Amino acid sequence: MIIIGELINTSRDEVEPAVKDRDTEFIQELAKKQEEAGADYIDVNCGTLIKEEPEALEWLVKTVQEVVDVPLCIDSPDPEAIKRGLEAHEGKALVNSITAEEDRFQEILPLIQEYDAQIIALVMNEEGMPEDDTDRIETATKLIEDLTAEGIAEDDIYVDPIIQPIGTDEEMGEYILSAIDEITNKYEDVHITCGLSNISHGLPQRKLLNQTFVVLAMSRGMDSAILDPLDEKIMSLAIAADTLLGKDQYCSDYIKAAKSDGLII
Amino acid sequence: MIIIGELINTSRDEVEPAVKDRDTEFIQELAKKQEEAGADYIDVNCGTLIKEEPEALEWLVKTVQEVVDVPLCIDSPDPEAIKRGLEAHEGKALVNSITAEEDRFQEILPLIQEYDAQIIALVMNEEGMPEDDTDRIETATKLIEDLTAEGIAEDDIYVDPIIQPIGTDEEMGEYILSAIDEITNKYEDVHITCGLSNISHGLPQRKLLNQTFVVLAMSRGMDSAILDPLDEKIMSLAIAADTLLGKDQYCSDYIKAAKSDGLII
Repeated sequence: MIIIGELINTSRDEVEPAVKDRDTEFIQELAKKQEEAGADYIDVNCGTLIKEEPEALEWLVKTVQEVVDVPLCIDSPDPEAIKRGLEAHEGKALVNSITAEEDRFQEILPLIQEYDAQIIALVMNEEGMPEDDTDRIETATKLIEDLTAEGIAEDDIYVDPIIQPIGTDEEMGEYILSAIDEITNKYEDVHITCGLSNISHGLPQRKLLNQTFVVLAMSRGMDSAILDPLDEKIMSLAIAADTLLGKDQYCSDYIKAAKSDGLII
Repeated sequence: MIIIGELINTSRDEVEPAVKDRDTEFIQELAKKQEEAGADYIDVNCGTLIKEEPEALEWLVKTVQEVVDVPLCIDSPDPEAIKRGLEAHEGKALVNSITAEEDRFQEILPLIQEYDAQIIALVMNEEGMPEDDTDRIETATKLIEDLTAEGIAEDDIYVDPIIQPIGTDEEMGEYILSAIDEITNKYEDVHITCGLSNISHGLPQRKLLNQTFVVLAMSRGMDSAILDPLDEKIMSLAIAADTLLGKDQYCSDYIKAAKSDGLII
């Protein structure tokens, strides 16, 4: 499971002032903790800062890369901010995100090409958010075909099927799971990732729904998620699911995690 | 999710003496607790008592049915014991189990027909236990075809794909999940159930693997499990999974369980 650590995001109360004040220690600590907990990428997002975003994103990339070895996920809808982040990033970065909206696609694509970045492709188009599985599969197919036609490798594409709340449509889970099934069957090397927490919006015991949905989605082929790697329960379920899905030779990752007290029931 | 409560089994230390001594209060308490926790069937198994088994099973059926409204799962490999259990049972029982072994099939079938019982069909044949997904699918297909040819409704058949430890073969999880996928796609009304705990045999933190495997299997179409309904975490995951799989209109079962403190994270 490819974990994208989501904690460095200025929409979180503690993080916004830390970024505004350029609190190096706070940000580096948060980055290191996520790497230690098993994050494969550290997401950096300072979208709430608006005008200051490009400069702050550049600072975040430099500040985080000083202390972690994993690559970053440069998370912004703004091409100018993404460019500043990519310029500052050493090694191959992941960009969050491109969509099938014509303008956004044309603005983001050259950046991925220039900096040889990986890309999260959100299944959104001119008509907005997807409704059902068919919408998701169609937009994903268009994005993958358009990106690979432009020389982006399948293995560099992370499709995000866009999670919407199960509380507003009880079929939402099946729409997303069916889309994951279909996309991973069609494109073997493309990754699937998503921000999970929206699935449980408006319902009680949200963590339980988030935990369960990760495992359901992994069973259908999702191989990445944007989540809090410090949440030991969700990380334990992800490790167990990889083992049970045959992705852990001799169950050695599982046994190692159990021995280091890295698993909770 | 159809829960078969597994706790009344003489292979458990506390249960064997209670059955031997015909401790009505102990057994009835254990049955009621499981029903209250959400069991749809109460399994009764006194296989360790050997010669005394038929008589003890009859006693168990009568004793448990005095205090619960859900049907029982009469769990024995012995046709004589099953017959005694079925005779004593009021309403439609579930029998655990028939296999594709010729002798066993011929002995158990007339009992199901005579008592109009539901049946758990274990994917075992003359050659023994299944190895991979192909073995499981072939034996399940034979069992379903043979049973339906004899007038048993698909909806009365619970296929048990036989869980073996992931620790001895890292592909075991995928074998079982693929078999579940294929069988549920082919036979829409057939149920899938299993005893889960064997998946984690020999590994640390077994409950975590059992919990995760339930959710993975539900994602592929398993709609029943033989488990401990007093394990709140596994029950919470099963309720959340049903909701996320679109089986819970308006998420009302989930919300009800959360309100009654019936969910844990």
